[in-house]
Amino acid sequence: MHTIPESHPRYRSLITREKLVKGFKDGIVAPQGLIAHGRGEAFDYILGEKTHDFALKSEKAAVLLLSRAKNPVISVNGNTTALVPGELVKLSKLLNAPLEVNLFHWSRERVEKIASLLRSFGAEVLAEGDAVLEGLESARRIVNKRGTYIADVVLVPLEDGDRCEILKKHGKKVITIDLNPLSRTSQMADITIVDNITRAIPNMIKTAEELKNGPNEYKEFEFDNNQNLRSAIQLICEYLTSKVLD
Amino acid sequence: MHTIPESHPRYRSLITREKLVKGFKDGIVAPQGLIAHGRGEAFDYILGEKTHDFALKSEKAAVLLLSRAKNPVISVNGNTTALVPGELVKLSKLLNAPLEVNLFHWSRERVEKIASLLRSFGAEVLAEGDAVLEGLESARRIVNKRGTYIADVVLVPLEDGDRCEILKKHGKKVITIDLNPLSRTSQMADITIVDNITRAIPNMIKTAEELKNGPNEYKEFEFDNNQNLRSAIQLICEYLTSKVLD
Repeated sequence: MHTIPESHPRYRSLITREKLVKGFKDGIVAPQGLIAHGRGEAFDYILGEKTHDFALKSEKAAVLLLSRAKNPVISVNGNTTALVPGELVKLSKLLNAPLEVNLFHWSRERVEKIASLLRSFGAEVLAEGDAVLEGLESARRIVNKRGTYIADVVLVPLEDGDRCEILKKHGKKVITIDLNPLSRTSQMADITIVDNITRAIPNMIKTAEELKNGPNEYKEFEFDNNQNLRSAIQLICEYLTSKVLD
Repeated sequence: MHTIPESHPRYRSLITREKLVKGFKDGIVAPQGLIAHGRGEAFDYILGEKTHDFALKSEKAAVLLLSRAKNPVISVNGNTTALVPGELVKLSKLLNAPLEVNLFHWSRERVEKIASLLRSFGAEVLAEGDAVLEGLESARRIVNKRGTYIADVVLVPLEDGDRCEILKKHGKKVITIDLNPLSRTSQMADITIVDNITRAIPNMIKTAEELKNGPNEYKEFEFDNNQNLRSAIQLICEYLTSKVLD
């Protein structure tokens, strides 16, 4: 990794990018994953690179839904693993939700590298594709029979639209983390977290810990995903407009 | 390359992405170039993936400025070469502006591959770094003494902010192609083309050809870059707002 001074105005964004490039060099991230990360960077940029109130609310709603699920699962890919491996493992343990490796650009080698990195943090990882979700053509139709196949709630960060659609068709509740509020995934999910995964997962960990100590605050939690997405789009417009030159 | 059906709603965007990935596999595009491309994709997406009036106007202004320059030059990198090699060569010839290879993530091998691909289209390519632009730290300070070093007008598509700044300090007119109207490059350039390079360069070729046949239409051309950037931001907000869910 290069040395980036902490004083740099976009320090966190650059550090995150370096993590991705390292994950790519280590064989965890696919080339297409680098392009996808760039898209995320752009949306994060026009969101001001911070967690807004609407995002924090969606993160709380997500933790609540996962904590009440019968069979929750957290689906991970190369990008999520490269960016927040330890945090994913911590969240997985707090929520009793196993991590399942699901790759769009599948290779046995990449699955093994991802699973092995996550296991080094002490995670339970489902890496075997031993069940099929009907109706999906990509490699992502292959799922695990103890994970996504039986899950009632699925957290699928950085997901593609096709898969979100098929999960919904199979009657599952879908939570996604997607910085693009217009994407098909964002619009189809039950809960869309419009936030950078490097901020979202730590925020979710905090909520999951609070929930363990006393769930009262979250008893009557109302969440409207359409309103959530509208807030994100409005925020982007306000941000862009504030930057217009005089 | 994969086979993507022409009927796919985002056909052109996906084809463009495949070209980049191929360029990457061929050693022309750097890993960081894939991330940069993703950022461009996101901005193109919220611009509706088409050339707007303000962009077309900036493309005409750019061609006019280049055609009136004493020593124009077109700076190219891995991404531009992977996406529009033949078009860059055509524009270079129409404007009598040589192509100069300038890489942020420099390697001799990558320079050679880029120059060789462009030369296969019949271009004059300046690939030797034999002059230095004072005040710049990255590899991009190394320029060509027959190109950027003596140029009065520089077309630098897909550029980084530092370099744009130093070109300006050296008294050069800078034209950039950047889908992010908020970037430092966009805000510092004399003319910012907020358009996808795969549409921008063909549009510029068309204008350059029209100019050869009769320049009268362009005699009294007025261009205000701040207004241009304001139009781009406004367009994005309108596009996003139109997509808000009911």
